[in-house]
Amino acid sequence: MTAHPRLSLNQATIKYADLDEAVAATVNAGYSSIGLWREPVQAAGLDRSIRLIKDSGLRVSSLCRGGFFTMEEGPERRASIDDNKRAIAEAHALGAPALVLVAGGLPGGSKDLVGARERVRDAIAELADDAAAARVTLTIEPLHPMYASDRAVISTLGQALDIAEQFPLGVVGAVVDTFHVWWDPQLFAQIERAAGRIASYQVCDWATPLPTDVLLGRHYPGEGVIDFASITAAVEAAGYTGDVEVEIFNQDVWNSRYDDVAAKTRDSFALAVAPHLFSLERSA
Amino acid sequence: MTAHPRLSLNQATIKYADLDEAVAATVNAGYSSIGLWREPVQAAGLDRSIRLIKDSGLRVSSLCRGGFFTMEEGPERRASIDDNKRAIAEAHALGAPALVLVAGGLPGGSKDLVGARERVRDAIAELADDAAAARVTLTIEPLHPMYASDRAVISTLGQALDIAEQFPLGVVGAVVDTFHVWWDPQLFAQIERAAGRIASYQVCDWATPLPTDVLLGRHYPGEGVIDFASITAAVEAAGYTGDVEVEIFNQDVWNSRYDDVAAKTRDSFALAVAPHLFSLERSA
Repeated sequence: MTAHPRLSLNQATIKYADLDEAVAATVNAGYSSIGLWREPVQAAGLDRSIRLIKDSGLRVSSLCRGGFFTMEEGPERRASIDDNKRAIAEAHALGAPALVLVAGGLPGGSKDLVGARERVRDAIAELADDAAAARVTLTIEPLHPMYASDRAVISTLGQALDIAEQFPLGVVGAVVDTFHVWWDPQLFAQIERAAGRIASYQVCDWATPLPTDVLLGRHYPGEGVIDFASITAAVEAAGYTGDVEVEIFNQDVWNSRYDDVAAKTRDSFALAVAPHLFSLERSA
Repeated sequence: MTAHPRLSLNQATIKYADLDEAVAATVNAGYSSIGLWREPVQAAGLDRSIRLIKDSGLRVSSLCRGGFFTMEEGPERRASIDDNKRAIAEAHALGAPALVLVAGGLPGGSKDLVGARERVRDAIAELADDAAAARVTLTIEPLHPMYASDRAVISTLGQALDIAEQFPLGVVGAVVDTFHVWWDPQLFAQIERAAGRIASYQVCDWATPLPTDVLLGRHYPGEGVIDFASITAAVEAAGYTGDVEVEIFNQDVWNSRYDDVAAKTRDSFALAVAPHLFSLERSA
């Protein structure tokens, strides 16, 4: 069975798979695209990863992830900027059009949310030239507000766009991840505003109660409360024609066989999301 | 030791206390105001509660809570509207200037967030005349977005104001609860917009990791990441001169002695919040 031509399996959905296993599961389930993470790529080695992907015939929809640069100036911040430059180079080498950036939380002991947000913008300014040269879009991912203190001080699509719009189109963009933004009363206005800036569309579902580790409360599309019809249509209307990733952090999913997860992801996508995509073809 | 003259102990902070015990703990710790909940008031009986409060000399800063009216038309919705009318009457009888409204989550099986939000507005329209006659402000509480599916489809102060502004000043207002709104990039702009509409200011702190039950992750002011200085100054600058409630849902706090909790609340407020209040006197 073939997956929707724009569907991409984000590697985090089969978190315990190494890159060989992830590529095999993705190909076996009929996908034509995969979303990569840096850790398994580094574990396989960058050159070997590039060959693996090339031999598989898969596209790389995005590389996760850079970011985590809310700290004040100093050696730790310099190390983060350098690491993000390496991530841009890796994304370029892997053929990933987008490097996903998670902002980072409040530095330890700090209550200065405004300052942390300014430092995210400043870090992106430092990276923009490298990204432009590599033709990799720095793709800011707003995370759900429940992660604002410890993981991402960028909580809404509007905030991500406030930063992205300070840079040229194609250099800085934003992720729309349904899990993180579905609740936002300004979501549809901001998706419309985001025309040309959406560099990654990620889908998974929200259900309550949340698990003990609130990072792991993501579900297959259709298993929760998110209206994929209206959000997907809005993202399409904003001109997004790239791959659509399914990224599920969920312990039960992680404990399942990779092939089963890849197949179930493909099938849930076909039911819950694919009917709302206008175009079959990806044209990034 | 006397509490800050504008400090009010929200009864949920000592959840297991009956009304007699809650009033005693509040008076013993030197407060002049208490925030009541309907359940313990009903358990004590309304007439007896009114006498208890009168004899204690305490003000009632608010009554929690009405709301939960996102369902579609039908007997369940009629019952909710009727119950909210009773809550308005109770607030009036207790001398509470504000009835706190929690919107309610998505009805079972529904993914229609937009529709649920419209039904919140419609319910408030049905209640506005009763509230105006009783001189009780219907006070919409935006809840943190992590509760959007199961508890409150109103997630931001901006959303609450979008509804409140459709009604006269004093009839419909909004709660600013630091736990729910601290992360919002539009918070300060919306607090400024809220001049005359803030009918309750509630403080407690946010810390991660969240507990297994994400409802219970609230902490004494100063124990987490919230910047009470800037938020309190903004609420004051918007003209709010009412009582300031501390409302903490936290199993460890609930398991502590009521007198200890009342004292610790008073003392943490004195350190973290009181220095940022311009006026000592409440003038609601």
